[in-house]
Amino acid sequence: MSTEVQAPPKIAERQIDEVTARYVRAADHRDGRAMAALFTDDAVVEIRYTGAGESELLGTVRGAEAIGHAVAGMMAPHPPLGWSHHTTFNHLVEVDGETATNDAQFVVYNVVGRARPAEGWPPDASGAQGSITPIESGYVRSRLSRVDGRWLITELVISHDLPYAFPQD
Amino acid sequence: MSTEVQAPPKIAERQIDEVTARYVRAADHRDGRAMAALFTDDAVVEIRYTGAGESELLGTVRGAEAIGHAVAGMMAPHPPLGWSHHTTFNHLVEVDGETATNDAQFVVYNVVGRARPAEGWPPDASGAQGSITPIESGYVRSRLSRVDGRWLITELVISHDLPYAFPQD
Amino acid sequence: MSTEVQAPPKIAERQIDEVTARYVRAADHRDGRAMAALFTDDAVVEIRYTGAGESELLGTVRGAEAIGHAVAGMMAPHPPLGWSHHTTFNHLVEVDGETATNDAQFVVYNVVGRARPAEGWPPDASGAQGSITPIESGYVRSRLSRVDGRWLITELVISHDLPYAFPQD
Repeated sequence: MSTEVQAPPKIAERQIDEVTARYVRAADHRDGRAMAALFTDDAVVEIRYTGAGESELLGTVRGAEAIGHAVAGMMAPHPPLGWSHHTTFNHLVEVDGETATNDAQFVVYNVVGRARPAEGWPPDASGAQGSITPIESGYVRSRLSRVDGRWLITELVISHDLPYAFPQD
Repeated sequence: MSTEVQAPPKIAERQIDEVTARYVRAADHRDGRAMAALFTDDAVVEIRYTGAGESELLGTVRGAEAIGHAVAGMMAPHPPLGWSHHTTFNHLVEVDGETATNDAQFVVYNVVGRARPAEGWPPDASGAQGSITPIESGYVRSRLSRVDGRWLITELVISHDLPYAFPQD
Repeated sequence: MSTEVQAPPKIAERQIDEVTARYVRAADHRDGRAMAALFTDDAVVEIRYTGAGESELLGTVRGAEAIGHAVAGMMAPHPPLGWSHHTTFNHLVEVDGETATNDAQFVVYNVVGRARPAEGWPPDASGAQGSITPIESGYVRSRLSRVDGRWLITELVISHDLPYAFPQD
């Protein structure tokens, strides 16, 4: 006789939080396939700068496939000993039947490890060696639809607090 | 025939998380009206410094209206290209009937954008331009009551890790 | 007549989030007893460095008691005016009957307060005085079991992004 109880399915708000949790991991791993799998085929991502009051459109990417390619191809690969963390907090999730929205704050950290010297760490070195710097922040707002039981992003608007320079500028 | 299913109401812990999510947005937008709407008429906010071991009271604000005024009037407005993010994590929420508590960690970031030069960004500029600096941290603990189906804050204690200088000091 | 309604029990995913919320508080308070209470007697903590691609084992601690001792004894005590915040975000929790996993991102902040000068703060000082620096980041992945109705950690793997120097290196 087992006393095991079947866990109830996750509540919708939590499922939607976890779409964002998978999004940040896909971004940090530069995993275009994992990223594309979070979006509908006709999803739209807009990147905006809102720090000067108005909202300026910086770029648009259309379609899950292109969104995956953008992660794998347009985001700079991590340098040796480098990593990033896209983090989100204070989600406001609204579910309305088979559609939903999520409004989250975000901060992106750039992580740069210090190379261990051939002769070992200096005597005064203790703890984690390197730097962790917040480099981007803002709001990320998404619309989602439940498709075959899975929440997928149909629209994602990334609003940066900081102005954004593109190499060709 | 519709297959739409009515979403169940949000669980109480999540509703309480979202009160905090609205609080941080109201603080960052310096939106006194949105802030006041989160508190009961007789709510009390205490600001404390706890970094030296004991808990020192820095200030008290009483009543939703005064709390809203404090946000709109006492918090410095953002400078041009400036913004902030109040962020909270690792909530511990306890619901007891029509009252509840929330214990959260917080970090506040100061965001300062770099002005785009008239001649455009320099050739080596790439990515977000400006700085994001954590300037405050600590714990924020609240008591809430459910009033007409909505959770409102009755008491909020902000415990700063860092000592706090007031301009008149 | 009371209209009070008994709050339903917390959903399992939330209970598991709160184990992590108690873990970060125990770490920041250097509270070995509170930390030990989160683990099973035979729990294992592994500390790893994964920033160079492969996963290097830095250390292992076995058993709730030893894990508590490590927090109280191996983590440096906070200096005067110092504090820390272990923070986690974007949890991915999977519950399977009486066992569960949690995959979270983490950032640790070092907080150093500025001592108030005997003559008071200088005229230009305003706001929080001191520095808040992210010093560690990575992923923390745990396995948990429900024991007598409480979720306890059976395995915790801390994967640091940054290389780690030990004083004896």
